[in-house]
Amino acid sequence: MEEDVKILIINPNSDEEMTQAIQKGADGYTRGDFDAVCVSTPGGPKYIETYEDMALAAPGMMELVRRHEKEYDAFIIACHCDPNIELLKEITKKPVVGIGESSMKLASMLGHRFSVVSIGTHSIPNKEAVIRKYHLEGYLASVRASDDSGCGYNEAAMLTEIARKAVDEDMAEVIVLGCAGMAGLDKDMQDELGVPVIDGVVSALMIAGGLVRHGLSTSKVRRYSPEY
Amino acid sequence: MEEDVKILIINPNSDEEMTQAIQKGADGYTRGDFDAVCVSTPGGPKYIETYEDMALAAPGMMELVRRHEKEYDAFIIACHCDPNIELLKEITKKPVVGIGESSMKLASMLGHRFSVVSIGTHSIPNKEAVIRKYHLEGYLASVRASDDSGCGYNEAAMLTEIARKAVDEDMAEVIVLGCAGMAGLDKDMQDELGVPVIDGVVSALMIAGGLVRHGLSTSKVRRYSPEY
Amino acid sequence: MEEDVKILIINPNSDEEMTQAIQKGADGYTRGDFDAVCVSTPGGPKYIETYEDMALAAPGMMELVRRHEKEYDAFIIACHCDPNIELLKEITKKPVVGIGESSMKLASMLGHRFSVVSIGTHSIPNKEAVIRKYHLEGYLASVRASDDSGCGYNEAAMLTEIARKAVDEDMAEVIVLGCAGMAGLDKDMQDELGVPVIDGVVSALMIAGGLVRHGLSTSKVRRYSPEY
Amino acid sequence: MEEDVKILIINPNSDEEMTQAIQKGADGYTRGDFDAVCVSTPGGPKYIETYEDMALAAPGMMELVRRHEKEYDAFIIACHCDPNIELLKEITKKPVVGIGESSMKLASMLGHRFSVVSIGTHSIPNKEAVIRKYHLEGYLASVRASDDSGCGYNEAAMLTEIARKAVDEDMAEVIVLGCAGMAGLDKDMQDELGVPVIDGVVSALMIAGGLVRHGLSTSKVRRYSPEY
Amino acid sequence: MEEDVKILIINPNSDEEMTQAIQKGADGYTRGDFDAVCVSTPGGPKYIETYEDMALAAPGMMELVRRHEKEYDAFIIACHCDPNIELLKEITKKPVVGIGESSMKLASMLGHRFSVVSIGTHSIPNKEAVIRKYHLEGYLASVRASDDSGCGYNEAAMLTEIARKAVDEDMAEVIVLGCAGMAGLDKDMQDELGVPVIDGVVSALMIAGGLVRHGLSTSKVRRYSPEY
Amino acid sequence: MEEDVKILIINPNSDEEMTQAIQKGADGYTRGDFDAVCVSTPGGPKYIETYEDMALAAPGMMELVRRHEKEYDAFIIACHCDPNIELLKEITKKPVVGIGESSMKLASMLGHRFSVVSIGTHSIPNKEAVIRKYHLEGYLASVRASDDSGCGYNEAAMLTEIARKAVDEDMAEVIVLGCAGMAGLDKDMQDELGVPVIDGVVSALMIAGGLVRHGLSTSKVRRYSPEY
Repeated sequence: MEEDVKILIINPNSDEEMTQAIQKGADGYTRGDFDAVCVSTPGGPKYIETYEDMALAAPGMMELVRRHEKEYDAFIIACHCDPNIELLKEITKKPVVGIGESSMKLASMLGHRFSVVSIGTHSIPNKEAVIRKYHLEGYLASVRASDDSGCGYNEAAMLTEIARKAVDEDMAEVIVLGCAGMAGLDKDMQDELGVPVIDGVVSALMIAGGLVRHGLSTSKVRRYSPEY
Repeated sequence: MEEDVKILIINPNSDEEMTQAIQKGADGYTRGDFDAVCVSTPGGPKYIETYEDMALAAPGMMELVRRHEKEYDAFIIACHCDPNIELLKEITKKPVVGIGESSMKLASMLGHRFSVVSIGTHSIPNKEAVIRKYHLEGYLASVRASDDSGCGYNEAAMLTEIARKAVDEDMAEVIVLGCAGMAGLDKDMQDELGVPVIDGVVSALMIAGGLVRHGLSTSKVRRYSPEY
Repeated sequence: MEEDVKILIINPNSDEEMTQAIQKGADGYTRGDFDAVCVSTPGGPKYIETYEDMALAAPGMMELVRRHEKEYDAFIIACHCDPNIELLKEITKKPVVGIGESSMKLASMLGHRFSVVSIGTHSIPNKEAVIRKYHLEGYLASVRASDDSGCGYNEAAMLTEIARKAVDEDMAEVIVLGCAGMAGLDKDMQDELGVPVIDGVVSALMIAGGLVRHGLSTSKVRRYSPEY
Repeated sequence: MEEDVKILIINPNSDEEMTQAIQKGADGYTRGDFDAVCVSTPGGPKYIETYEDMALAAPGMMELVRRHEKEYDAFIIACHCDPNIELLKEITKKPVVGIGESSMKLASMLGHRFSVVSIGTHSIPNKEAVIRKYHLEGYLASVRASDDSGCGYNEAAMLTEIARKAVDEDMAEVIVLGCAGMAGLDKDMQDELGVPVIDGVVSALMIAGGLVRHGLSTSKVRRYSPEY
Repeated sequence: MEEDVKILIINPNSDEEMTQAIQKGADGYTRGDFDAVCVSTPGGPKYIETYEDMALAAPGMMELVRRHEKEYDAFIIACHCDPNIELLKEITKKPVVGIGESSMKLASMLGHRFSVVSIGTHSIPNKEAVIRKYHLEGYLASVRASDDSGCGYNEAAMLTEIARKAVDEDMAEVIVLGCAGMAGLDKDMQDELGVPVIDGVVSALMIAGGLVRHGLSTSKVRRYSPEY
Repeated sequence: MEEDVKILIINPNSDEEMTQAIQKGADGYTRGDFDAVCVSTPGGPKYIETYEDMALAAPGMMELVRRHEKEYDAFIIACHCDPNIELLKEITKKPVVGIGESSMKLASMLGHRFSVVSIGTHSIPNKEAVIRKYHLEGYLASVRASDDSGCGYNEAAMLTEIARKAVDEDMAEVIVLGCAGMAGLDKDMQDELGVPVIDGVVSALMIAGGLVRHGLSTSKVRRYSPEY
């Protein structure tokens, strides 16, 4: 039945390499049972790091949603800071799922506290602001980041080490991968760490798939209504 | 692929009629794509209303999980107060999903605030305590309850009226059905109200199905470890 | 001395009538002692009501800040939802003051709780989200809105009536005007209500003027640094 | 006058040695002025460490309360995680006091923040959940635990060392003993540490004794009413 | 044994009639088993209503504590806003118990939420500030006040009516008397309302008596140390 | 125009040396454009460190406000713990601005989190209590204090070192000087640290000047009304 479900995964940046990594991670979850297609954002920045990057991604993200609204059943924002999520929830009646929101709310169901592993200390306050937006401060053990910037996605060893400190020193019981580009690292890290490691794209596919299957979507009654 | 997923839905009470209603609701979601079997709890109380009811359900719920641990891939607690959820998360390595936790966290992704509709004013403080346990106070519009007690499941009109007050007067944007026995009412209520209405069993199936599919489960590192 | 201070007030929308109303309100505060110039946002939407409106305003607001960065000492965002405030704080080293943030934090210094008066019930959840972003929930009496939408700025009587209910029924001790277009209504409302009524543009001018005078601005150490 | 007051202290486990330690601690407080009798829970687990231990203790605890309801004026739960406290508050009209709740709320009256000293890092998240349940997060300096598990009650030196770190490094001003079995250690630790050290059983006797004396007990109006 | 315990109840105002009402209420609790003496504050204001009243009471309260420090084992502040409680906790090593803090923390142990009944709407924000100071917002149903000011103490019928609204409309499960002068009204109100009604002086005597009995007092390690 | 604005800065202690340091710091901000006069408090303690110090300062502070109410347009409390701020807000209709409240609320507008640098670990809990009073916990990185007590005001190097740890280890993005006597240190520290450093007196002058200019003051509707 689910062969009919079609989900568009929006990589808010324009990095094709990351888009492919996300696609590969998604394929590992969908295994052909339903369609999940990852696309880069036209006109999007190279990476999503700053607030300006998020603003630059907005027009292309809107365009993608509007162009594909009929074709797809749900949209996923594949950047862990969920850029422009309120905007997309507003402009379409189809479900919109952020990988940040879905991964962290899922993490809150699997252990006492979670830690987010990230790249660059610059990202820590930004992630804290997002965590607060989702009312998840009480579930947070820590945001831990490497010192280097640039969303890297082949740095499993370093992330595992950071995550281990979160588990041992910050009392984290669940690890959340804080970048869409870390797709595919979850299984190995989970095996090494012995705690659940949550990939954002996978968690978003779970939620989006379920919403589509049952005909649920964003409430249009006030906050996310496009008409005032 | 998902034909292999097998989920046991535990109705913590011993009311066969409610078990059947839950089964029917679950079937509406699974549509034969994966197995979800609802069973009553041996030795469970007629209904889950009081803390004593929850305590009386515990031995039977533990027995069900232990007897069926190899056979099933995940367990769902089909009572909106999620009785004994910490206990079940602790005693099995398989995922345990409460319909209260999953429905309300899902609701928090679909609108600014949600209201829970429930039966009997007695249930309001108990639900507030559960909502606080899940750190969801900031997403709550209200808990609204009819005056009559007894978990009723054919009272669509009354619940719709209560829900409408929540939407209009309490600024709720999403409605959460506050009893497993309300299974099957969501679609009609959603049509009438014009806002998402979330059924607990359906939301738990979404989460449990996704967790099984990706090999995620409760962290065993400290809080939910059975070994001290 | 302050004749040298130059502040650019950015009206995020393109409505010249509102820009003039804001300018007039600003002039009432600056009284020629320092420069405060209000401009409409090139390419901005007619009004700022939806998240899309905020996104549409972003490019023009960035352009204004970058074009005028040398010329002006501080920037004010003259829309009570402070659209794109993190973005502007990031892209310039000059102070950026939102009328929402400054008016509500000022209100928190003048009484036990404040209420925001606004236009359209649609705006209530959006304002609640902003209030939470600024950690001001504990100071909030209520957000009260008229039923009609469209940011109106000659509706003193209606706003006074709404504000009176906030004071009498919600225990508000201070009123915050929830729209830049309400500039100039504060004095009359204050006289009628007998409680402080705070205009956003005025409060932003107070803060921005002080910051410039003492050489203070946004921290560039992590969250609002443009360089990752 | 108080010779008539009779309090039953329920040790939720079946360890007679701990029951005797609790009795001894209680005697040190009552000094014959009123009756406080500690009993082990029939069918209770050896220790209360896991959620399963708490569930296993429930039937015996209910039985004790029901069997002795006429005979005793109040019931104390003598385990610092207050197992089944909502259940006991519900099934009897007599006061029910948990040593966790009473010790930590008392601690909040004696200093800026308190720390709980405990056995085994496994207990830390569980205690944090209890502290949150009692709305005491804002008063918490830390939960500090030894690495070894097993509720030990002759380990004064180790606990004193842990507590000293809480005072010096976590800014605790009051220490709460996190296990009923630590009864009797408070005075020596207090002398060594120079800050108040609170024993759970003693604090529960204070509260329970006062409630009985003045005829106060649990509200039966909704949450803790056994009738729905 | 307790005949040796001596507690000084400080009425922060100079109203002898209220001092006698408090003494009578205290006698009803102590019943000769221990000494509890209520005194008016020399130089204190007629009533404690404003912040100035609290400041005016401070010198006399300090004088009482210092003059009687050797003679008494504990001090109670018999005004529900606990005026100068940090000050008194700082200047003496003996326990200091406020009737506001003790009554509301006790109330939090007896039901899901409590309401405070008070005199005059002016008192509502002041009480809210105190409730927040004690981290009790999450336990609060409401502060309800009559419209008339002046701390009245023979207005049982009016207070009962206010309290009933708190129970019925605000979901309060416990009532806290919000003025020391209401001493003696608790029992009749409790009988009429069917929920626990807590008198501040009685609750403070419970706590103070217990602290003295067990040799506990304010931590002197930092916040309440008189030496910097 | 502003030559007419007259602000009285109340140093709650009687230390003339500190009064002069504050005056000098104020002059650096006002630069002759408006009047800001700092006076010591008659009968005030040598320093404000303890709660007793705050109580001892109250009569003199009230006297200053009442004696100068007609002469001055606003009052500033120049001690970072804002002693007796509710009292002063109540007794005058003119604006009252605390340097603690204004500096920390201003800090919250300039970065993700702020740290307060202070003197003596004793001050940490007291400052935490004030920060909570102002609902600023969510903006706090840390309160960092030197070990020595005594409000020192020529200890720039030590404070800079403490502040640097706050920035590097606690993720502070803004530094708040935690003592009025630190006036004048902000600029040098800011240059060394590379983050905004906020002086309390300067921030209070910004706010007070703006309030006077626009005719805003404390709400007199309930909490700060002197008449009950």
